[in-house]
Amino acid sequence: MFKAVHYTEVPAEDVKEDDARGVQIRWLISRRDGAENFAMRCFEIKPGGHTPRHSHDWEHEVFILKGEGIVFHNGKRHYVRSGYVIFIPPGDEHYFENTGKDKMIFLCLIPYRK
Amino acid sequence: MFKAVHYTEVPAEDVKEDDARGVQIRWLISRRDGAENFAMRCFEIKPGGHTPRHSHDWEHEVFILKGEGIVFHNGKRHYVRSGYVIFIPPGDEHYFENTGKDKMIFLCLIPYRK
Repeated sequence: MFKAVHYTEVPAEDVKEDDARGVQIRWLISRRDGAENFAMRCFEIKPGGHTPRHSHDWEHEVFILKGEGIVFHNGKRHYVRSGYVIFIPPGDEHYFENTGKDKMIFLCLIPYRK
Repeated sequence: MFKAVHYTEVPAEDVKEDDARGVQIRWLISRRDGAENFAMRCFEIKPGGHTPRHSHDWEHEVFILKGEGIVFHNGKRHYVRSGYVIFIPPGDEHYFENTGKDKMIFLCLIPYRK
């Protein structure tokens, strides 16, 4: 189904995983829209917040829309800011942390299983 | 392979299809990076420019980063601007046109075939 909306029209939900702090997610494009191959989510992290430190057997394709922070990848911390594109391969340990003073907002896309 | 770069570090190439005008593409994340399921591209369209009017049997997942313009979908023109998220299902006719005064920049993701 065709869709064209401002991302803020998509409801934000709290990420309630134990190791997440100050994180919200919007499912911008998902199976509910008819997307069968991959999903586009938007994350917002408050200053000082972070996503869970974990690994899983699917990749992330990420684009930082606003703010700045750290992407942790296999033991190293990489500084990123608005305009950065990040690829996290399957199986690699990672998390995102907002080390700035404003909201950190980024797109994070994941594949669907067939 | 892990990757974290500013999108402007990825080279922009002219889109040379007959019906494209004033369009450049950056392949931000692709098979060259080890992405096996979907690719992230960034398009830049000059004011007055447009992508080709066409349809194909794969979907687009789009996020408008900067500027404003029109997304044409199956005979209708929809106004979009920075912050808009767009899903174009497989098989639907579409193009993007920059109707603004500044560059129109957007992410457009496509699936890879298995």
